[in-house]
Amino acid sequence: MRLTLAQIARALDAEVAGDAAIEVTRPAHPAEAGPEDLALAFDARHMALLARGAARVAALPVGADWRALGLEGALFLGRPRHALAGLTARFDRPPAIPVGRHPAAWVHESAEVAPDARIGPFCAVHAGARIGAGATLVDHVSVGEAASVGDGSLLHAGVRVGARVRIGARAIIHPNAVIGADGFSFVTPTPGAVESAKTTGRVDDAARNMTLARIHSLGAVTVGDDVEIGAGSCIDRGTLADTRIGDGTKLDNLVQIGHNVRVGAGCMLCAQVGVAGSAIIGDRVVLGGQAGVADHVKIGADSVVAAKAGVGSNAPPRSVLLGAPALPRDEALSLMMATRRLPRLAETVRSLKKRLSGAGPTG
Amino acid sequence: MRLTLAQIARALDAEVAGDAAIEVTRPAHPAEAGPEDLALAFDARHMALLARGAARVAALPVGADWRALGLEGALFLGRPRHALAGLTARFDRPPAIPVGRHPAAWVHESAEVAPDARIGPFCAVHAGARIGAGATLVDHVSVGEAASVGDGSLLHAGVRVGARVRIGARAIIHPNAVIGADGFSFVTPTPGAVESAKTTGRVDDAARNMTLARIHSLGAVTVGDDVEIGAGSCIDRGTLADTRIGDGTKLDNLVQIGHNVRVGAGCMLCAQVGVAGSAIIGDRVVLGGQAGVADHVKIGADSVVAAKAGVGSNAPPRSVLLGAPALPRDEALSLMMATRRLPRLAETVRSLKKRLSGAGPTG
Amino acid sequence: MRLTLAQIARALDAEVAGDAAIEVTRPAHPAEAGPEDLALAFDARHMALLARGAARVAALPVGADWRALGLEGALFLGRPRHALAGLTARFDRPPAIPVGRHPAAWVHESAEVAPDARIGPFCAVHAGARIGAGATLVDHVSVGEAASVGDGSLLHAGVRVGARVRIGARAIIHPNAVIGADGFSFVTPTPGAVESAKTTGRVDDAARNMTLARIHSLGAVTVGDDVEIGAGSCIDRGTLADTRIGDGTKLDNLVQIGHNVRVGAGCMLCAQVGVAGSAIIGDRVVLGGQAGVADHVKIGADSVVAAKAGVGSNAPPRSVLLGAPALPRDEALSLMMATRRLPRLAETVRSLKKRLSGAGPTG
Repeated sequence: MRLTLAQIARALDAEVAGDAAIEVTRPAHPAEAGPEDLALAFDARHMALLARGAARVAALPVGADWRALGLEGALFLGRPRHALAGLTARFDRPPAIPVGRHPAAWVHESAEVAPDARIGPFCAVHAGARIGAGATLVDHVSVGEAASVGDGSLLHAGVRVGARVRIGARAIIHPNAVIGADGFSFVTPTPGAVESAKTTGRVDDAARNMTLARIHSLGAVTVGDDVEIGAGSCIDRGTLADTRIGDGTKLDNLVQIGHNVRVGAGCMLCAQVGVAGSAIIGDRVVLGGQAGVADHVKIGADSVVAAKAGVGSNAPPRSVLLGAPALPRDEALSLMMATRRLPRLAETVRSLKKRLSGAGPTG
Repeated sequence: MRLTLAQIARALDAEVAGDAAIEVTRPAHPAEAGPEDLALAFDARHMALLARGAARVAALPVGADWRALGLEGALFLGRPRHALAGLTARFDRPPAIPVGRHPAAWVHESAEVAPDARIGPFCAVHAGARIGAGATLVDHVSVGEAASVGDGSLLHAGVRVGARVRIGARAIIHPNAVIGADGFSFVTPTPGAVESAKTTGRVDDAARNMTLARIHSLGAVTVGDDVEIGAGSCIDRGTLADTRIGDGTKLDNLVQIGHNVRVGAGCMLCAQVGVAGSAIIGDRVVLGGQAGVADHVKIGADSVVAAKAGVGSNAPPRSVLLGAPALPRDEALSLMMATRRLPRLAETVRSLKKRLSGAGPTG
Repeated sequence: MRLTLAQIARALDAEVAGDAAIEVTRPAHPAEAGPEDLALAFDARHMALLARGAARVAALPVGADWRALGLEGALFLGRPRHALAGLTARFDRPPAIPVGRHPAAWVHESAEVAPDARIGPFCAVHAGARIGAGATLVDHVSVGEAASVGDGSLLHAGVRVGARVRIGARAIIHPNAVIGADGFSFVTPTPGAVESAKTTGRVDDAARNMTLARIHSLGAVTVGDDVEIGAGSCIDRGTLADTRIGDGTKLDNLVQIGHNVRVGAGCMLCAQVGVAGSAIIGDRVVLGGQAGVADHVKIGADSVVAAKAGVGSNAPPRSVLLGAPALPRDEALSLMMATRRLPRLAETVRSLKKRLSGAGPTG
């Protein structure tokens, strides 16, 4: 892939200077950039590294003196990190699966596959499934009975879409993600060990989990438009109705979403997050890596939960939560500070006690 | 699928009232139920929601006035959540893989596949493997050399069963689970960094992990009957003998079971739990989501471990453990309470000190 | 597989006693060993268990009286746990995939596959990919466009190698691992909720994540030689340059490595570890199970991080870190101790206060 500075500038609505006809093949770190690369030097530190590489052209902050940096051309980008989104989109190379069905794919005769969809080797599309216009299944993808994959979606290798699951348009689902496994839902005939432990603090004799009955998952999963689901992530079906992931929400790798969960729109769930059954996550919530949300908990819109936090109770919109169990940030930080000072506090108490004991007899 | 109220009542041993010939196609939330659904309204709150839906029939608590709710028929269920198990079982739709071998499956000539087993597209059954009566491999399933899958088991898409692994009868294994990867077991020629850190608190020069030798996993995995293993979960082989999962134990998604671990019968391991090598988990233990158990630790039967807990030492039967490092519940809660009060305690100490300092000269 | 005591002794450079011609088929626990097994009894406790089994021969500590134990032969091993590495290697049985391409595999005509490579059923090797000499792809493996798999590497069932990813020589990659999914990298046009929460502790109105722009991953992943990657683990591509895993590094199951991360040589990352984007892990670092490392954090060489720790700031070489947020071990232990004593401390303060209050009026 080769693009001229002029082409990139036009696509990103950016200013260009110098020789706009110079072609580049990829953006690169300034110290590693070769003569065919567009070096990215958005601040003074990175501009200083240009000398270590061999770039002829670079993307620079507005107003930078490109000639003084020894360049032959430059792009000027206002909000660098955001510009990176547009820039990397120009150079992205999606998997090269040809339009049509690979001879080593299997598609049930009752499935509906759009004529311009791309079905790679060893994909299995079961009865009644629907693959939308321009969608791509890379290889080894499973699409279950009566499931649907929206227009323009990209399902990478080994993705499993369960029966009756609905994936919206323009989804990107990374390798080996599983959408639509059964929920983890078992009951004991009478109140069991967990209920006993929560209420009495003990596991009473009668509360031992001697038998576990399975609650089957009759619901499926509904995934909105423009959703991204990371490698190895798992989203379970609902019990009666569907588990839901809102439009524009992004899940990182190895994320677990339990049965009946509703995740709002525009959320970001970082790697290894776990959301237990029936939790409700509002719009635009951010859950940091390895954070957990207990079952039936509601987290209000625009909340930010720190990495490794464990959210065990409801949180209003715009909460900022830290720790396990998670607390509002200010409270969590003050407890953390107080704990750090705890050895000194204990020392103070010891000396007060000594003084008081010493003072006692003589006072 | 269509069932009459009478058929459901008979299957669940429940009372029925009104028109027992009315057919329903699925159970549903009362507010969302249509005229072909069985609304589930097990308490007053859900009964009040019936008016929002269009259900003609509902499952109600014993003694509820179904006519006053505008219904044409009703089922009466004594222990609602437990009844849900039986009810959802009636309406469950397992994957529709036909009996026999899909033409796009590959089965080694030396493998033994029961005549009524169902082998879906792109399944690979290696030499000497055995697939039991009535078992189903949905699609893309791998069964390694000399491995066996018990009667009536259901292996979803992308499940990997390693060589010589034995899966019992009636297992349900969700997509992309891995049973029988090698254990994570490496040794240094002399005591290494971890041993040094544990004993001296430092990593001594001689203890740096300059070379790592691999201990191969010669054992396999033995999984009992009636076990469920969640999507993406991993169970490693044992070093000499097998890693073992007891009868009736249920694992949620993305659970990790290390080499040589023994998990008892009737356990429930919630999502993203990790059990390190050689740990022993007693019967009917419940491990909450994202909990961890350190290597060689023993947890006694009927214990309940809270979500996110980290169990680093042995625990007697019926332990209830919280926190990381995990402590008995009462101790953990009292520490948590004391920590919450820490800022106030520090304030008290400050004022005592001031008073004592002030009192000193004048006393 | 049958080996004589003499053959094993020669391979491990060990001493042998008694009948060196006795053949064994596997090493086994002394209590479980049959007449064809080599019992492992490296200490007094295990030697005492020999009587429970039926072993004719055993591996013993140097100097043990094998005749008194009723054995017909013995091997003497100096450093038992390290010897186990060599011993298990002799009896290891790798997957039996024949040399060549399975008829149910698909290899693009432009891919280069070494003549002695082993490509199992349902493997997909895309355009321009390269499979090295003696490499094995077990089954259902995906190798993306222009990716390469080094000589002698073993890729188990369902492994996904993304486009342009490079895997070194002698890698062992366990089932369903994903090397080369896209990084999780999204930006808001102006500073978003996370930045707002970090700087002000609140999510300001203007900071709500109303739109998320995707930064595409143009880099790939470079994995060194002699690396092992566990089942279900995920390594994301870099944004511009490659994410890197150093030579000899071992990853356990369900480990997450974010985009741009550099993991050094000889590291051990235990199960369910998460390393966020752009973190740098030095050589020979050990990360305990479920530990997390925040984005952009640097951990110096030879550091040891405890299970479940959360490393949020840079750590010098040979750090030993515990807790979340992680602290140097001595500090973490002293805080833990002080916290455990907190209820007693509060009691002391209460009594001091009482005494002082009582003393006040009369003083």
